[in-house]
Amino acid sequence: MELARVGATPKGGVRRITLTEEDRRGRDLFVQWAREAGLQVRWDAIGNLFARRAGTDPNADPVVIGSHLDSQPNGGKFDGAYGVMAGLEVVRTLNDRGVATRAPIEVASWTNEEGSRFVPTMMGSGVYAGVYPLDEVLQNRDADGVTVREALERIGYRGDAAPVRIGAYFEAHIEQGPVLEDTKTTIGVVQGALGQRWFDVVLTGQDSHAGPTPMDLRRDALIAASRLVLEVNRIAREYPDNARGTVGHMTVKPNSRNVVPGEVRMTVDLRNAKDASLTRMREDLERSAAAIAAQCRVTCDVKEVVYFPPSEFDPRLVQLVREAAGELDLSQRDIVSGAAHDAVYMARIAPTAMVFVPCEGGISHNEIENARPQDLADGCDVLLRAVLAKAGGA
Amino acid sequence: MELARVGATPKGGVRRITLTEEDRRGRDLFVQWAREAGLQVRWDAIGNLFARRAGTDPNADPVVIGSHLDSQPNGGKFDGAYGVMAGLEVVRTLNDRGVATRAPIEVASWTNEEGSRFVPTMMGSGVYAGVYPLDEVLQNRDADGVTVREALERIGYRGDAAPVRIGAYFEAHIEQGPVLEDTKTTIGVVQGALGQRWFDVVLTGQDSHAGPTPMDLRRDALIAASRLVLEVNRIAREYPDNARGTVGHMTVKPNSRNVVPGEVRMTVDLRNAKDASLTRMREDLERSAAAIAAQCRVTCDVKEVVYFPPSEFDPRLVQLVREAAGELDLSQRDIVSGAAHDAVYMARIAPTAMVFVPCEGGISHNEIENARPQDLADGCDVLLRAVLAKAGGA
Repeated sequence: MELARVGATPKGGVRRITLTEEDRRGRDLFVQWAREAGLQVRWDAIGNLFARRAGTDPNADPVVIGSHLDSQPNGGKFDGAYGVMAGLEVVRTLNDRGVATRAPIEVASWTNEEGSRFVPTMMGSGVYAGVYPLDEVLQNRDADGVTVREALERIGYRGDAAPVRIGAYFEAHIEQGPVLEDTKTTIGVVQGALGQRWFDVVLTGQDSHAGPTPMDLRRDALIAASRLVLEVNRIAREYPDNARGTVGHMTVKPNSRNVVPGEVRMTVDLRNAKDASLTRMREDLERSAAAIAAQCRVTCDVKEVVYFPPSEFDPRLVQLVREAAGELDLSQRDIVSGAAHDAVYMARIAPTAMVFVPCEGGISHNEIENARPQDLADGCDVLLRAVLAKAGGA
Repeated sequence: MELARVGATPKGGVRRITLTEEDRRGRDLFVQWAREAGLQVRWDAIGNLFARRAGTDPNADPVVIGSHLDSQPNGGKFDGAYGVMAGLEVVRTLNDRGVATRAPIEVASWTNEEGSRFVPTMMGSGVYAGVYPLDEVLQNRDADGVTVREALERIGYRGDAAPVRIGAYFEAHIEQGPVLEDTKTTIGVVQGALGQRWFDVVLTGQDSHAGPTPMDLRRDALIAASRLVLEVNRIAREYPDNARGTVGHMTVKPNSRNVVPGEVRMTVDLRNAKDASLTRMREDLERSAAAIAAQCRVTCDVKEVVYFPPSEFDPRLVQLVREAAGELDLSQRDIVSGAAHDAVYMARIAPTAMVFVPCEGGISHNEIENARPQDLADGCDVLLRAVLAKAGGA
């Protein structure tokens, strides 16, 4: 709650956009608290923060607990910040109880997870995992022409810490969806993250007057678009493996009450936990679009613009989370993350697992985002036990 | 083509918005040509122009040929202007041949048919027919706050001619639709105009993340809207009497690629030649909207915002048009006007008929609007014969 005062908005949310003055103040607070907890803090060339609690084995790779401190422009208090604070709470608890671990424990905060000022999203973890070349990313510019490098230097968080091998990565996060609340479950044992394929679709028919043009002589792009919206919904409901399909964006031209629409632009977002199913969904979408275009006498251009493969977390680490929730007698269920997180990139270079806790109404990326203190504490407890099991006793 | 130079646009269209300087120049040209043809010109308090060719019977009500000289902001050369010029051509031809008629013939140009600067559309004919009170309409303002009265005075066309009883009203117009061209027909014998019911629809569900929200827990306003678009199409195709149904306008909120839409606003435009069928279409729409709302767990507000009853033209005048086309060996077909015209208001106070000629691709309200000279000439010939039959020999 103290961190949430940095960039606090009138409606109870947070505006702590990456590499701004608010982000700096949030980072400063985290660094101060980490040092007060006896942690050794460093940051790297893309501004990722690492706060290390030493282990007893000098050769052991660290167990990293992380997430992000930046927020959406009109974001909530918990998205990202919860995971970093949960990591801090774990080491404080170990300190309070005088528990040493074999492997070091590090609390990480990744730069620019949200991607709302600079693309790409999950920039810091992406660079760390080798997905994005550092030099290229440093040159990306915001809407005002400021580069990532300049923004990092301006807030004093362009560092030089060399990357280290990560022994295991844990991330706690609010679910950002309604499943845990809907099923009255406290802990989501995250199996991985859905793969994503995003498309831009343009349907082109012919504008015509709504009055004088008989139904049979129309080439109505909105009728074709409406059929495609329903096909996306059908596909998402038919396929297995947590399939999801969404048309979130649509614009109609000329968008006049008494003119038959000649053009519709829309997006399609397909997700699935299995890459093979996701590919079949894409093929089904393309077939459906072609059939609708022919039947409605319009043209339909479907262009894939984003592909994220599904991510499967490490079964042994996932099992540690499951067992921790069991030992604590907390209700739990296996869940797949519908959204991407820094953990998705970490999973490419280290054994990874995530802990989800419920959020109110499943609402996130919104100032009214909320979560129950007890659920957040339970998530910390699970994280503590899973981390401890992995880091090992001294 | 000379009139089309007034307000000509680079793409070959016309921008002659009502009561502007361009409209004044168009009116001036018409008045000049009418006077050169020996006609007596007057205008009334709403700026409607009347150019009279005297008849031999001083007690006969005039046969009026009319349409409008104003255009859409990016309009074509023929919409409206053709009907006025056709009237002028009829009286010039009678002059050339030395033909006298029993009833006077008047060529009329109605003020503000398009409604693009001042509401309502068909303002001049609406006032003449008693649909709109003159004093109220004169106070309507454009986007800059200028009243109709001020605009009329500014261009010098606020007159004081008293209304006269109209013996018969004929209007020639491009079809503004594709039927005549599609069926290779020169003359459309217009039976009347479709009734119209316009609706504003708001569908409200719940925004949610496209990733973390499973399909079953969504309340997607765009899925409901898409189903309603297809229902409007079904209704228009199922009902008899030239039924038409169009969703021309749609906006999606928040309209973001990876957010399930929480709100959709859309319009519905239903048309039918028979009032009873139009009423049943409205009831069907309302039933469909309620069923979709329940099934999709959204709310759906359907509000009717415009109602124009269907208009049936005078069977005897329609028969004169049909016979004229027959005498001239022109291809013809009965047709119903999908759009409203000044003739729709005239039909409330006088026997009325219309003559349609084809326009290229059915395209109108567009700078590329086009029509073949021979079709336009054929339309004039039909108009001449029908008017002569009604006005009677001397």
